[in-house]
Amino acid sequence: MNVKLEKLIKQFAKLPRVGTRAATRIVLNLLQDKNGRAENLANALLDAANTIHPCHVCGVLTDKDSCEYCSDTVRKNGQLCIVRDLSDVLVLEKSGVFNGRYHVLGGNLSGVLGVTPDDLNISTIPQRINEEKINEIIFALPNTVEGKTTQQYIISIVNNPNITFSELASGVPLGGDLDYIDDGTLTLAFGGRKKL
Amino acid sequence: MNVKLEKLIKQFAKLPRVGTRAATRIVLNLLQDKNGRAENLANALLDAANTIHPCHVCGVLTDKDSCEYCSDTVRKNGQLCIVRDLSDVLVLEKSGVFNGRYHVLGGNLSGVLGVTPDDLNISTIPQRINEEKINEIIFALPNTVEGKTTQQYIISIVNNPNITFSELASGVPLGGDLDYIDDGTLTLAFGGRKKL
Repeated sequence: MNVKLEKLIKQFAKLPRVGTRAATRIVLNLLQDKNGRAENLANALLDAANTIHPCHVCGVLTDKDSCEYCSDTVRKNGQLCIVRDLSDVLVLEKSGVFNGRYHVLGGNLSGVLGVTPDDLNISTIPQRINEEKINEIIFALPNTVEGKTTQQYIISIVNNPNITFSELASGVPLGGDLDYIDDGTLTLAFGGRKKL
Repeated sequence: MNVKLEKLIKQFAKLPRVGTRAATRIVLNLLQDKNGRAENLANALLDAANTIHPCHVCGVLTDKDSCEYCSDTVRKNGQLCIVRDLSDVLVLEKSGVFNGRYHVLGGNLSGVLGVTPDDLNISTIPQRINEEKINEIIFALPNTVEGKTTQQYIISIVNNPNITFSELASGVPLGGDLDYIDDGTLTLAFGGRKKL
């Protein structure tokens, strides 16, 4: 195969959920397109790489000085939702379940992977609480040891009795068949059972 | 979501085998990478879009004047393999089953889709036969009505009794379970049965 073509396919194959086979199809499809799709995509990506950056307040990607959530005054309702990644923000926004502000950590604390508080976007949380008059922090972190550790760490550094902390409920997902639910989730669902 | 980000995700989602969900992951992954992977990929794609073009002889993508197969004199062995797409060349090259030259049609004749001989890279075949002293044409086209029609059309325009035409054998694939083979393939496999 042409060397340049091969290199490009290898670069595409490193993208998440794309392997060599899909990368080959993508590259051939782009380069054989007569409407200049390869060039358009490359220019759009280059433009995004040069202008899009994490919001300096919450960490959401934006091409403005302050992101759409931080600059929306309606969202200044005292609620701060802490998530691991930007993709979590997108999921929550799609559901429309939350209308406050976000804080993207960029990961979770992990002894195994060696992720310390300095690696994450944590240190600015106390400052945000003051400046944005936050009264409730909602943790929407993964239901894992790392997620819970991160949660506990943030509660300890906030150390403020006026803040309500909450986390997403654990249990059987909607439409979830008990046959397919793991023991841990089942234990949590039993422990958190609701009176009817 | 940020408008620029959303547009970029939509462009990625149009790539083959990539949907909105995968495109979102790809774009977030690229833009959040600290080693400038987004920029590198964009530049590589831009460079490829500007320098890679179909070989003027056979249609294989190349950044040179003539592709690696057409400029390789060892491959001038009188065999010409006719394929539909460049991806077919890659598959054949990976298998190492063929060591002659290729001719990429860029599609198959199709009454339904309105693909005529003028839309395909067919007209130069007689000229190649003369110039490259081709004595065997091997059709590696899809085993479909369109593939067979295209094959017949090319045989008719070549119209040369000194050329041997052949096509890939039809039959049960290696490891193929008869339970899962369609009737058409089974009929072809029976018709082409070999004496032991």
